[in-house]
Amino acid sequence: MHSVTQETPQETQGTPTPQEFGVGGRITLAVMSDDYIDVILTALAEAAADAAELDVATDDVSTWATGDETALATYFARLIAAASRGGRHVSATVMFSRGCPGEVRCALPTGRGLVSPLPVVPPTGVTASAQWALYPLDDSGTADHMRDIHAAIEAARENGSFVRSDRYTTRLHGDVATVLETVAGGWVRVGRTVPHVTTHVTISVNSPSEVTA
Amino acid sequence: MHSVTQETPQETQGTPTPQEFGVGGRITLAVMSDDYIDVILTALAEAAADAAELDVATDDVSTWATGDETALATYFARLIAAASRGGRHVSATVMFSRGCPGEVRCALPTGRGLVSPLPVVPPTGVTASAQWALYPLDDSGTADHMRDIHAAIEAARENGSFVRSDRYTTRLHGDVATVLETVAGGWVRVGRTVPHVTTHVTISVNSPSEVTA
Repeated sequence: MHSVTQETPQETQGTPTPQEFGVGGRITLAVMSDDYIDVILTALAEAAADAAELDVATDDVSTWATGDETALATYFARLIAAASRGGRHVSATVMFSRGCPGEVRCALPTGRGLVSPLPVVPPTGVTASAQWALYPLDDSGTADHMRDIHAAIEAARENGSFVRSDRYTTRLHGDVATVLETVAGGWVRVGRTVPHVTTHVTISVNSPSEVTA
Repeated sequence: MHSVTQETPQETQGTPTPQEFGVGGRITLAVMSDDYIDVILTALAEAAADAAELDVATDDVSTWATGDETALATYFARLIAAASRGGRHVSATVMFSRGCPGEVRCALPTGRGLVSPLPVVPPTGVTASAQWALYPLDDSGTADHMRDIHAAIEAARENGSFVRSDRYTTRLHGDVATVLETVAGGWVRVGRTVPHVTTHVTISVNSPSEVTA
């Protein structure tokens, strides 16, 4: 998961595709009702158009998708919103990764970086609470991780989703689209200087609060 | 989340407590049934004895706990197993963190490291599938992250929980106790040379497989 040779984004030999650069994510969508299968299948059908540009594969733990960052964040926001609209309590775990297209060992295309625009996600009308962690995984020591993380948190303050720092995480609140825009935006921003970056967020919608573990 | 000054574990001025060293975790327990509140409250009651040594706080997204690594892994395994025993589909998101007792900025006690034993978790009888990521977050460049990650994966092979590398994650399968022993063990093992380490795992029990997003 962790042996990255730092590349210079400027020195391109053709820009890598998101797939070549290992840009992708995973989502686990949990719906706390007896009809969760129907709710999830309906959400997948509603969001299918947003997956058109992505490669998607589902297993028994999560759904994996790879492709453009904006398409990824939009697809995951639509899935969560679609599953939540009926008022059921939904918990979603989302992670994004970039810069490690291999598995344990990260083999990046030599001399080819990927600088992506900050994702913009259309509002869903569904409000969520979230706990977010952002992990720059570069070993080279040349990147300024704190600067990147502070910029990501500053962006969350600017769009109103920042609530507070919470143990090991940053608490966000807002439209599911804003939450995922913030999470994916922080990840893309750090990715401009650190090739291998991951981010994890746990998102809760319609929670009866104090009883949810 | 990320500015660690590396400490020498040997040079102790008294061993820090798990709380001082920021040793803790979060769990989000999702039960896919109408009676999820009862199931979660019952699981919390059943596992209460395992939380005796921990400080625990629940909010609308997750339950946070801090304390000894073995107690943390055992508590989370018991919670997941207790919620799953009735056959309902359960999805749990677990993260562990160490070496960052602050929030954005990691202020470790100077000159005091924490070398912990590998957790041993009593079997639960409940089988799970899981996707696991392990993140050494040290910036100093002196730690050999790949050695630590390979050792963590080797331990998963030895206890039989390793299935395969999967995009951005390692797939595990086995008793919930073995899965959490593997995840927490990898985290503790890396923590012997890298002060700030986090790990995330998504755990699925009783999944109807292909319909779960």
